[in-house]
Amino acid sequence: MTKKMNIVGIGPGDREYLTIGALETIENSDVLVGSKRSLEPFDYLDAQMVVLEPRDIPKTVKKAVSYLDDGFNVTILSTGDPGFSGMLKTMQKLSPKTKLNVIPGISSIQLASAKLQIPWDDANLITIHGGRAPTEKLLKELDENKKNIVLPNRHISELAEYLIDHGYSPEHEIIICEKLSYPDEQIVHVTLGEARQMEFGYMCIVVI
Amino acid sequence: MTKKMNIVGIGPGDREYLTIGALETIENSDVLVGSKRSLEPFDYLDAQMVVLEPRDIPKTVKKAVSYLDDGFNVTILSTGDPGFSGMLKTMQKLSPKTKLNVIPGISSIQLASAKLQIPWDDANLITIHGGRAPTEKLLKELDENKKNIVLPNRHISELAEYLIDHGYSPEHEIIICEKLSYPDEQIVHVTLGEARQMEFGYMCIVVI
Ligand SMILES: C[S@@+](CC[C@H](N)C(=O)[O-])C[C@H]1O[C@@H](n2cnc3c(N)ncnc32)[C@H](O)[C@@H]1O
Ligand SMILES: C[S@@+](CC[C@H](N)C(=O)[O-])C[C@H]1O[C@@H](n2cnc3c(N)ncnc32)[C@H](O)[C@@H]1O
Repeated sequence: MTKKMNIVGIGPGDREYLTIGALETIENSDVLVGSKRSLEPFDYLDAQMVVLEPRDIPKTVKKAVSYLDDGFNVTILSTGDPGFSGMLKTMQKLSPKTKLNVIPGISSIQLASAKLQIPWDDANLITIHGGRAPTEKLLKELDENKKNIVLPNRHISELAEYLIDHGYSPEHEIIICEKLSYPDEQIVHVTLGEARQMEFGYMCIVVI
Repeated sequence: MTKKMNIVGIGPGDREYLTIGALETIENSDVLVGSKRSLEPFDYLDAQMVVLEPRDIPKTVKKAVSYLDDGFNVTILSTGDPGFSGMLKTMQKLSPKTKLNVIPGISSIQLASAKLQIPWDDANLITIHGGRAPTEKLLKELDENKKNIVLPNRHISELAEYLIDHGYSPEHEIIICEKLSYPDEQIVHVTLGEARQMEFGYMCIVVI
């Protein structure tokens, strides 16, 4: 029987959002693969750590697969839920033949929803993560009659500018949730006009 | 300082999908409120158990709030994620003034996505749970170009019938995920024509 590659969701950051099963799988792994941020909480383990550099994902995935082929228990860590703009899709694309065991995790989207108390079955979930700049696709996807919970691309000021340039009022209020569950978590309510002038890190969920 | 009512997502069923933080909050509660199914895994605790009967939710919520007012730590258990067709919305409706502390959980939708390896950021999430029968709203929401992950209402045979009556082919394949994470979990791939003849329990996710 060939082993499966584990793809484990570790939640938005803090250990409290890790599931019991995810922790167990991680603790039973010989090799852990993930971004620096996702490996850090598991520093205390003996496993071999393979850092997934954003610019070098295909190469790192190959390495992970070769560990698996050598008979090791290999686990790829995905922040949030691997099934939401996470490592599931990446693996399906880069290594379609590798058999996977996917363990869900709490998505940053869910934590934003919990903290803001917005039921997300009525919300409109949008991900533009990975895209270079906001595009028309975003405008089409935004639903004026719903709360839009957006996993944005890098620059929120650019996103705000784009929306203003395309008919949104600078007075339009949005909520920015930065670094959810980290000690320096910030949740701010601002207008698009204000957001255009502000600097945020890359770890944000935006509610429009 | 008045206490907040905890609303905790306990995941689809098995303990492995419970988060560390959810467990901690549950273990620190004086009173646990939830359906029989959601209370059962916490039988071993000393807390006062209040069973939420589907037909008697407003009364049970009132009782929970009065425990809170009396100074107890009260936790409402929600299967899956409280923010997805769960207890968050129920509490906002039935007791809008009660301050809440919402702790997310793994939704049954996410476990279906993980088991079937369908990224859910591209999928179309639909909930018709609670409705009496399938309606036109469902037809409008179904997206032919996407996987539709549906939290159905009671009778899947009725849903299948409705879709066939409204233009779907009886050969159209769907996936039914029943009792995810329970020992008697079942995942079946069937046609609408077959599903029309079959009996399923109420704990299902359907992928169309
Ligand atoms: C590659 S995506 C992964 C999403 C992840 N699979 C999930 O379900 O949350 C990374 C993006 O998720 C969002 N994100 C992840 N963790 C976050 C956190 N703790 N706080 C806010 N946003 C977060 C940010 O938008 C970040 O750019
Ligand atoms: C009141 S809704 C609650 C949904 C929950 N908040 C969630 O996020 O999964 C109950 C419905 O969720 C689905 N469900 C909950 N647990 C499930 C499981 N273990 N397997 C399959 N479906 C489940 C079923 O459709 C059930 O009728």
